[in-house]
Amino acid sequence: MDFTEATVDTKEIYSGRIIHVKEDIVRLPNGETAGRELVLHNGGVAVIAVDDDENIFMVRQYRKPYDEVVLEIPAGKLEKGENPYDAGLRELREETGYMAKEYRFIGKCYPSPGYLNEVIHMYLAKNLEFVGQELDSGEFLEVVKIPLSKALKMVMENEIADAKTQVAILKANKILNEEK
Amino acid sequence: MDFTEATVDTKEIYSGRIIHVKEDIVRLPNGETAGRELVLHNGGVAVIAVDDDENIFMVRQYRKPYDEVVLEIPAGKLEKGENPYDAGLRELREETGYMAKEYRFIGKCYPSPGYLNEVIHMYLAKNLEFVGQELDSGEFLEVVKIPLSKALKMVMENEIADAKTQVAILKANKILNEEK
Repeated sequence: MDFTEATVDTKEIYSGRIIHVKEDIVRLPNGETAGRELVLHNGGVAVIAVDDDENIFMVRQYRKPYDEVVLEIPAGKLEKGENPYDAGLRELREETGYMAKEYRFIGKCYPSPGYLNEVIHMYLAKNLEFVGQELDSGEFLEVVKIPLSKALKMVMENEIADAKTQVAILKANKILNEEK
Repeated sequence: MDFTEATVDTKEIYSGRIIHVKEDIVRLPNGETAGRELVLHNGGVAVIAVDDDENIFMVRQYRKPYDEVVLEIPAGKLEKGENPYDAGLRELREETGYMAKEYRFIGKCYPSPGYLNEVIHMYLAKNLEFVGQELDSGEFLEVVKIPLSKALKMVMENEIADAKTQVAILKANKILNEEK
């Protein structure tokens, strides 16, 4: 069965620095039409960095949408056309001060596919070297170093809420265990 | 350190059926101001349903933001004030036709905390009974039954992109293994 929804009409709603919002009218498989609210975003990167003692580096950061300090792995948004591989290394360096000699793609994720087109590219960094944090002006965060085993327990006990961080911790733990 | 960003000004941008968009001006910890683009959403539920042979039920569904058919666990959005526990049972029943005699909360996730306030509540359903699918009019999807072990492999090999689905499969696998 072909589920594709052809766009019948599109209305621009908002163009911000981070998101664009539009409203499409689509043709459904049964011939009827329906509205689709769409949030467009350039995508992001997230990096789980594991040191030689199997600690990971996370950042505590105030997140306005939740009015809450959220614990996440280092991450950032892509500029239009930016290479996610390089962006991940840059964000890791800026937020935690670490460079990585081993670094690989471990998957992408779609945060909320019903209305959002963001793609988050995830990387696993190892063999780390501290060279110094370089936060953007206006960026406030605290770096937290914790054992991967403890982070995994926190994910299972619902003490870490961020989706990309949950995925990266669960995946990295499995990857590193299988390589032992 | 207090990272809280006080709201100095707020501008309503858009009020749709699924999302609201606003632009806040906030006071940063260093006293400067900055803009925050915010997408507000009532939140959602997602259910990983595992049968007695350790198969799970997923749905293939066209997602306009990616112009792609995306493989996800059954999920849906909350109406304002709706109880996520009940909403999960309802979505599972409507999309797959299954009711669950065992059903429990396995965690929440924040899909994209930089600009989005959505919370996805996740449940694990077991001891399933087929009572018949009840799709909403205008909802088109295909139910797929696959072994949990295969779904886990698909997550690790980047063949499943949806974040909540990745988290639920990784967590359910760990929970069920630990209970054996």
